Amino acid sequence: MAKKLKIGLFGFGCVGQGLYYVLNNSTGFKADIVKIAVKDKTKDRSVSKDLITFDKSVILNDPEIDVIVELIDDADEAFNIVSEALKKGKHVVTANKKMLAIHLEELYKLQQQNNVSLLYEASAGGSIPIIRTLEEYFDNEELEKVSGIFNGTTNYILTKTINEKLSYPVALKQAQEKGFAESDPTNDVEGYDPKFKAIIIALHAFGLIIKPEEVLNIGITTLHENDIKYASEKGYKIKLTPVIQRLENDKVGIIVAPSFVKETNQLFNVENEFNGVIVEGKFSGEQFLQGRGAGSYPTGAAVLSDISALSHGYKYEYKKHVQKHASDFTNDVIVEVYFRYNSNADIEKITFDEVSEKYNSGDYNYIVGKVNLQTLLTNREYILKNKLFVSLVNDKISLNTKISSKIAKEKQLVNN
Amino acid sequence: MAKKLKIGLFGFGCVGQGLYYVLNNSTGFKADIVKIAVKDKTKDRSVSKDLITFDKSVILNDPEIDVIVELIDDADEAFNIVSEALKKGKHVVTANKKMLAIHLEELYKLQQQNNVSLLYEASAGGSIPIIRTLEEYFDNEELEKVSGIFNGTTNYILTKTINEKLSYPVALKQAQEKGFAESDPTNDVEGYDPKFKAIIIALHAFGLIIKPEEVLNIGITTLHENDIKYASEKGYKIKLTPVIQRLENDKVGIIVAPSFVKETNQLFNVENEFNGVIVEGKFSGEQFLQGRGAGSYPTGAAVLSDISALSHGYKYEYKKHVQKHASDFTNDVIVEVYFRYNSNADIEKITFDEVSEKYNSGDYNYIVGKVNLQTLLTNREYILKNKLFVSLVNDKISLNTKISSKIAKEKQLVNN
Repeated sequence: MAKKLKIGLFGFGCVGQGLYYVLNNSTGFKADIVKIAVKDKTKDRSVSKDLITFDKSVILNDPEIDVIVELIDDADEAFNIVSEALKKGKHVVTANKKMLAIHLEELYKLQQQNNVSLLYEASAGGSIPIIRTLEEYFDNEELEKVSGIFNGTTNYILTKTINEKLSYPVALKQAQEKGFAESDPTNDVEGYDPKFKAIIIALHAFGLIIKPEEVLNIGITTLHENDIKYASEKGYKIKLTPVIQRLENDKVGIIVAPSFVKETNQLFNVENEFNGVIVEGKFSGEQFLQGRGAGSYPTGAAVLSDISALSHGYKYEYKKHVQKHASDFTNDVIVEVYFRYNSNADIEKITFDEVSEKYNSGDYNYIVGKVNLQTLLTNREYILKNKLFVSLVNDKISLNTKISSKIAKEKQLVNN
Repeated sequence: MAKKLKIGLFGFGCVGQGLYYVLNNSTGFKADIVKIAVKDKTKDRSVSKDLITFDKSVILNDPEIDVIVELIDDADEAFNIVSEALKKGKHVVTANKKMLAIHLEELYKLQQQNNVSLLYEASAGGSIPIIRTLEEYFDNEELEKVSGIFNGTTNYILTKTINEKLSYPVALKQAQEKGFAESDPTNDVEGYDPKFKAIIIALHAFGLIIKPEEVLNIGITTLHENDIKYASEKGYKIKLTPVIQRLENDKVGIIVAPSFVKETNQLFNVENEFNGVIVEGKFSGEQFLQGRGAGSYPTGAAVLSDISALSHGYKYEYKKHVQKHASDFTNDVIVEVYFRYNSNADIEKITFDEVSEKYNSGDYNYIVGKVNLQTLLTNREYILKNKLFVSLVNDKISLNTKISSKIAKEKQLVNN
């Protein structure tokens, strides 16, 4: 049966306060937040002063506290807190995707070495229970692909710019006013946040621990009204949709970039701050999950669900990792993209394997074609600096032709 | 760590064969089907004869077999098998919603008494992991409502009749040819199948054990082209959408009936054999899950996921039931419906509390208004016999006015 937990909380911002409210207004589940560590000594807090501490060791060294909930912004400091807590045999719940994505390997080992549980459902899909579903429900099934909208901020901005024709700065300002975007929105709009989430999901869906710097993230900062016009005329919306895909050679490719989404795609109707995840299983087919990707209560509720799971002794078993489900990560793959460029120098630098559409006019040039993902990754800074725009035209990652024809030949040999 | 299980399988129809295929083609998870009990001695089977038995006791009395997977059609015989297996200390996986809905109370007790696990994810949402998500993720959160499309057969027929203007008999025949509908489609088209699923979901979402005969199910058998025209002109689709809703007095109301679904509703785009479930949490807001509601492999994959969970010692804890999350079930509630009738005798029999729209012509009469659910339940046979049609105009169940004004008065007293 469930055990009543004593919680030490780090951070009392939007999510921390959400958790506090949700926990104290839940009928089914009880736990005590016995101490809250915060940084800013000048801020007025809505809770009793006795609860607050400015010294993290007060929580970390309290043997009465079983569970640490880490909800601060600073990823480095978060890692210090979380790793120290795990070493001290405390269970941890966190929503810090950046910290997780950067330190997955160490955090995985720390759990095993100290026989403690680290849960982080709120880090990857807001209120969507994607980690739990991958870990517990799809544990026995080979997955083909996970894709979706993992970032509420950019989805809100894209919804406003595309559906309501607001300008990018106005939409960004609205998102900030609604609390969906931070004052420095870099992490969201440049696609780092959804990349961190994609890396966490890749571990639970395919068993791979991938370094963030190995994965391409292109955000929405260079989106131009010509791009929106191009997509709209074809009936597409533009969404920021990470794709994590298993390839025929058992490797996994990942790209985090805008993509043209057709009306038949589940993600077409995922608007505003909502997130959506599509999971494609070998046998179960396509599953779609949608929920709120941001907000104090929904995220607080996701954190609370992890705390409740801890009270039942739950821990991730990382089944796909243990089973070595996919062999490796690779960027040597082909993606089909719309590429808006300025000059011939751009397409000499970023060379396409195949071009299916080409358009040139005075101030608007684009090609649609197939390009190696490694080429885009190598030239990421160049693309952003020169305000070029890249969007996937579908949600597929393919093997490069050399590898796929080698596989086809091998298959033929086996069959003959 | 996971234990390798020995499985005794009952039934080798569509789902049984799907499970057999999926299990033998899974890379991550291993288990052995050591015996398959079937009824028909004349049928050719695609598996070795040694695997087949016609005597159920061969499986039930085999001490080597840890897990019984029950996938037969006959609900009574299924209950005999499942209850005997549980009593013998064997874990059971089943997809038989009718058997479950009728015997929830006994099956709940048998699990406790014999300390065994009964899992049935495939029974309620096809390949959507709804039971697991309710049980493990929303265990600590108060839910407001669960609604959705729980029946692939009727959704397929409605998609074909509404989007593609096929006639009902042609659409039904197509569904049968595709294997989505049985030769006797009563269970699906009269709404029994989604009702059984709603009852299973109500236990895991609200903790209530409700008898099937207490819940109104109206199917799609009396749907007329006038109804489709009425809905289409307003931009609605008609879907068969069970609604399970918590009321202000902490009771729960359920209705299984067609409803007019607006474009803004998630269920609007759930087409063909797909199922969709909307879960509304007090804090997490609206979650939406979609997946295949029928088919050999998707259902087989759902069964396999339960078997895999068993190998990790998983059992439902029925947390909402233990916590007594809702106080009771009630039919004394108000629903707003479109009601197509033939004569004044019909609306004298089925009296509305409030009428907001009324239309009369020679052969097409309807009213839109508020009616007590108990009135519809009492007159269910009359409605079907006279080919009248009832559709919810929204997905809400409300308290009846007397009760809600009593609650309002009590609140006022407390405030004064």
